[in-house]
Amino acid sequence: MAINLQIPINKDLLSIPGIKLSSLSAGLKDKDRKDLMLMVFDDGAIVSGTFTQNKFCAGPVIVSKNHLKSTSTIKALIVNTGSANAGTGDQGIEDAELICQSLAIELGVSSNKILPFSTGVIMTPLPVEKIQKAIPDLVKALKENNWLEAAEAIMTTDTLPKAVSKSILIQGQKVTITGISKGAGMIHPNMATMLAFISTDVNISLEMLQKLNKEIVDTTFNCISVDGDTSTNDSFIIAASKQSKHSEIVEEGEDYKALKSAMFDTALQLSQAIIRDGEGATKFITIEVQNGNNVDECKKVGMSIAKSPLVKTAFFASDPNLGRILAAIGNSNLEDLDISLIDLYINKIQFASKGAIAKKFDGLKIQEEMKNSEIYLKVNLNRGSHKAKVWTTDLSYDYVKINAEYRT
Amino acid sequence: MAINLQIPINKDLLSIPGIKLSSLSAGLKDKDRKDLMLMVFDDGAIVSGTFTQNKFCAGPVIVSKNHLKSTSTIKALIVNTGSANAGTGDQGIEDAELICQSLAIELGVSSNKILPFSTGVIMTPLPVEKIQKAIPDLVKALKENNWLEAAEAIMTTDTLPKAVSKSILIQGQKVTITGISKGAGMIHPNMATMLAFISTDVNISLEMLQKLNKEIVDTTFNCISVDGDTSTNDSFIIAASKQSKHSEIVEEGEDYKALKSAMFDTALQLSQAIIRDGEGATKFITIEVQNGNNVDECKKVGMSIAKSPLVKTAFFASDPNLGRILAAIGNSNLEDLDISLIDLYINKIQFASKGAIAKKFDGLKIQEEMKNSEIYLKVNLNRGSHKAKVWTTDLSYDYVKINAEYRT
Repeated sequence: MAINLQIPINKDLLSIPGIKLSSLSAGLKDKDRKDLMLMVFDDGAIVSGTFTQNKFCAGPVIVSKNHLKSTSTIKALIVNTGSANAGTGDQGIEDAELICQSLAIELGVSSNKILPFSTGVIMTPLPVEKIQKAIPDLVKALKENNWLEAAEAIMTTDTLPKAVSKSILIQGQKVTITGISKGAGMIHPNMATMLAFISTDVNISLEMLQKLNKEIVDTTFNCISVDGDTSTNDSFIIAASKQSKHSEIVEEGEDYKALKSAMFDTALQLSQAIIRDGEGATKFITIEVQNGNNVDECKKVGMSIAKSPLVKTAFFASDPNLGRILAAIGNSNLEDLDISLIDLYINKIQFASKGAIAKKFDGLKIQEEMKNSEIYLKVNLNRGSHKAKVWTTDLSYDYVKINAEYRT
Repeated sequence: MAINLQIPINKDLLSIPGIKLSSLSAGLKDKDRKDLMLMVFDDGAIVSGTFTQNKFCAGPVIVSKNHLKSTSTIKALIVNTGSANAGTGDQGIEDAELICQSLAIELGVSSNKILPFSTGVIMTPLPVEKIQKAIPDLVKALKENNWLEAAEAIMTTDTLPKAVSKSILIQGQKVTITGISKGAGMIHPNMATMLAFISTDVNISLEMLQKLNKEIVDTTFNCISVDGDTSTNDSFIIAASKQSKHSEIVEEGEDYKALKSAMFDTALQLSQAIIRDGEGATKFITIEVQNGNNVDECKKVGMSIAKSPLVKTAFFASDPNLGRILAAIGNSNLEDLDISLIDLYINKIQFASKGAIAKKFDGLKIQEEMKNSEIYLKVNLNRGSHKAKVWTTDLSYDYVKINAEYRT
């Protein structure tokens, strides 16, 4: 029951020169369901990563961060579902290293050139032997055009695979971007059991790729919430094979700007796809907070609304019980918030003015608007010139059902 | 479907010398359902209040706070349901003042001796005329033993009235305490559509009553959460008629200690009653966080668990998917949290040791424990000597149902 989500998200998925993928069922979950994915780069590829800030971050998150620090180029990413390998202590870190070592031997590289990722149930040991056994077949199956299968292999409660492609020209040379993501619950990235991998052949320095990662994640994956729970495994990865023929991007010029714009579009579509496929979601809700003193306070207000179970159930019911939105704004811990300045709109219809019920408040009209599956909620703080957008879902019976029965 | 909640909570409700109550239906909600409550004090009574920190706090909250500042003694409290008179702007403040004025005239006092309270739908105007019309009948019906009716009159989504009585001896003189509370949803007091009124005839100075209020609320009403949403109307009030014959309590001696102990018990039972009657709740969950560096960090960890929809749905399903608890602890924003020190227990059965799965983890045994309606979750941080307890509910289909259909 994903909301207006097409697969692939925009058009045919494009292969990236210098990158091959494969996926298969290693028996980590249901039989015949793919649960292991491998992405292998030609030599010279670079990777930037943003990871969860959850203190109980998973073993593979710790290992990936360490490997990224220890080497400038990366050979492969390996991703399993079924076990998140989180809450598994030192054993979890050792298990993630064991997977890297087995794959490193198969690919003939040192094991710090491998980044491991896991998603699934927390506090369940990683099935190391099953994964090790599957590695030779995984390596044999590598192809350039396996993107959709890769997106399928990393799904957990997702109902649809999430993948998007784009191509741009830099210095007249074609640059291709293809990204995949997964996640539907435990989504409140504070970079999230959210994983996103965007790959490109752009020729860029590692320093600039790291800068790009941070700039993109702040306004895309870090602006979505299904349930306010930040996962132990969130990872947002950009990998560049650097095989496009233009000269290397080493500074913030026109080339960086063009790349950033395309990368932002890709990340935005992938992050929004997670919300469109949010657990039990029936509505896709965009919250735009305008005219704040800074971006951070706009985001705080947006997230306070996005996290409120009362606001989310009202949207599920299309019930214009919109005072709950005021209450959520009042709980966002903003210093010196003057509520008498605040105006509120749903799909352009104003329902609150100067912090109180709008004079022309028409409950029936707003109820009709709330029946749409796409909701645009606008909050005008009227005290500054900055804004932020966040994206969220409603809270339905099915969210409870999916999470009460996740392991059964 | 309240969990192990008796009415009254402990024994027969005791009248308080110097305090009379009444309630009736003013037609603010369903016909024949009581929706207006009045509590009137003999001259000389004092009141201490703790109010919501929600920035969108209601008109009556603003008025009550102002009145408490402007006068040392209080004559009456008036409470309506149906409209929370929040998100109503300046009109809401004026409306609350109008109610005070009408009641003040009827009682022959100045209007700052009246404290108004409202609970119900946010961003709905207060039905001022209906309330004003009902005031004469309300005043006529005042009696000393109307406590249970008063507790019923302030209910919204509550399924049962919440009331508790206690009596103690101070200097050999009988001191009686009777408290009532309401609330089932939008409960995360950060003082809460939570209201609690505890009345007593203790003879105490206003300064000491204010001190008592703060000390009690921090470890009772401020330690409960149903849904993480802090209401616009939360108020915790202690009223003292001062008619007991002992000499006035003006400092922290044995008398204050005895009073505080009885007051804490009363507030704890009333606050826990709100959780036991939490919207859609099937389980009453106590979370004890031990051995933290300070009480504040213990409470932060407890509340991070109490607010997690994933933890709450797992408890609803009795699903030992307990890695979600680790994830919630990891999200509690504690500086320098060493997860490798953390031990976790449900009803005395250890399920995590040193931040990872306990070696003797027995999923079936824990699942059986989780089927109890009373759950005791213990988190040992193993890094200090402080502790805190918080109380919460599971998250069920019925929570979604109640809140999707609240106004229908």
